[in-house]
Amino acid sequence: MTIRTLAVVGTGLIGTSVALAASRHRVTVYLSDRDETALRAAAARGAGRPEPPPHPVDLAVLAVPPSQIAPVLAQEQARGLARSYTDVASVKARPEREILATAPDPSSYVGGHPMAGRERSGPLAARAELFRDRPWVLTPTRFTTKLAFDRAVGLIALCGGVPRVMRARAHDDAVALTSHAPHLLASLMAARLRDGPVPAARLAGQGLRDVTRIARGDSRLWGDIVESNAGAVADVLTRLQEELAGVVAALYDLAAPDGDGPGPETRGKSRHTLVDLLERGIAGVGELSEDRADGGER
Amino acid sequence: MTIRTLAVVGTGLIGTSVALAASRHRVTVYLSDRDETALRAAAARGAGRPEPPPHPVDLAVLAVPPSQIAPVLAQEQARGLARSYTDVASVKARPEREILATAPDPSSYVGGHPMAGRERSGPLAARAELFRDRPWVLTPTRFTTKLAFDRAVGLIALCGGVPRVMRARAHDDAVALTSHAPHLLASLMAARLRDGPVPAARLAGQGLRDVTRIARGDSRLWGDIVESNAGAVADVLTRLQEELAGVVAALYDLAAPDGDGPGPETRGKSRHTLVDLLERGIAGVGELSEDRADGGER
Repeated sequence: MTIRTLAVVGTGLIGTSVALAASRHRVTVYLSDRDETALRAAAARGAGRPEPPPHPVDLAVLAVPPSQIAPVLAQEQARGLARSYTDVASVKARPEREILATAPDPSSYVGGHPMAGRERSGPLAARAELFRDRPWVLTPTRFTTKLAFDRAVGLIALCGGVPRVMRARAHDDAVALTSHAPHLLASLMAARLRDGPVPAARLAGQGLRDVTRIARGDSRLWGDIVESNAGAVADVLTRLQEELAGVVAALYDLAAPDGDGPGPETRGKSRHTLVDLLERGIAGVGELSEDRADGGER
Repeated sequence: MTIRTLAVVGTGLIGTSVALAASRHRVTVYLSDRDETALRAAAARGAGRPEPPPHPVDLAVLAVPPSQIAPVLAQEQARGLARSYTDVASVKARPEREILATAPDPSSYVGGHPMAGRERSGPLAARAELFRDRPWVLTPTRFTTKLAFDRAVGLIALCGGVPRVMRARAHDDAVALTSHAPHLLASLMAARLRDGPVPAARLAGQGLRDVTRIARGDSRLWGDIVESNAGAVADVLTRLQEELAGVVAALYDLAAPDGDGPGPETRGKSRHTLVDLLERGIAGVGELSEDRADGGER
């Protein structure tokens, strides 16, 4: 489905990257952002025109935090910004539920989530190639029209992404596991570094830097993301919490001096608990490697 | 302190790397390992002679897992392998306690831990440059002689490392925070990936790969490490567990639909819990960056 005109609402990293990719394909792109500085920066990079379109565009991309998708869609549909709508938020079920309840026309909307990102945020970090060969999830509802769906697929093609259709709930469960829970774990570990004496951080190596790197992300955006997917993230962390409790108990068993703690049988079980976790961890990392070619979101 | 002859007991990644660095400085290096294949591989790489020394060497480096340091030291001192001894294990307090209780001569030993590593293990992954400009902790006891200490410092100089003297307990508390607890967290997260449906891993991006990468490490060696430092690791994970419980509770509050869950005040508190964690995480990562020049252990 050819797209001639595109509106991008929100000129952060993802919105500006989409706009840059579309502009390279001679699509006329109209940009908007509540933040005038971000808007001017995106326009200066050649991402599009920092003004409202004179007529409804073929497709509007809502590149705003998850909690803003439904209100912004209602507002833009009321204004008649576009003929079809999609978004790029990393949570899909709650916005979908809100849209079905409040949007003037849910049928012209299809949820989307390109699995791509960078450590840096904002329009100056945007790149037209950000989505190349990356999965880009679409979550049509039973109301979504074929036209709206095809236009979103057309946008993914312009960006060089790989469309993947999923149910919103399945998407959110998956990213709770692969993105949102890992982010909070990284934050929990990084926050602990401030407990320790200063020299602790001076002994830190690449492993710790890797484990905690994603915790750098913008706290307001990530707060919005994890809140919007709170139930699924809580479920992942609850399972992790249960296993963590067993690991801590095993460690305390093994920390007791010989003859002063649990007997050899309990020690043996505790040792098994640790090695079993380590081995399942190795297997888990192995599953990631097999899919390495998929790339994906940071 | 000039070292002319060196014995390396254990020709894994670290032992072989030490041997390669010393061999480049024309030190005569004698290698041993219970694993004949590892021993031959290290010798084939030019790390040293795969045979016992004809006379006691200046310094022996015990490059065996933490639980093996004290028994191997006792055995080698009884044989008269060297005039001084050090080790490279990533846990220091428990081996020190065991050595003070059982070694024929605790005064000729000083604990050591080079903060360097690689993802790969074994003699084929060894590199003479592994320790260059990295911190190398030494943990002398009140019994350690000046001669034993100076010889260990001489070895660090041969390897291009930066000596840093610490108490064994302070070292272990620091690495529990910066290395051992992060490793178990990475394992816990990676193990969760096997819970999910297969497509979850296919949506994984660089962030998840970074968070879980260290979980690849050898499960027997890491089991030995975390068991040897069990108390300190359990203390770090207990603090993390307490905060995790608060985060999970906040997420469940926020997951409840409007009007069906807690009131706005509780929601506000839960939101604050999340954003506060995210912000402290950003600050924690920032402390690491300030010390980036230190490099360190994976």
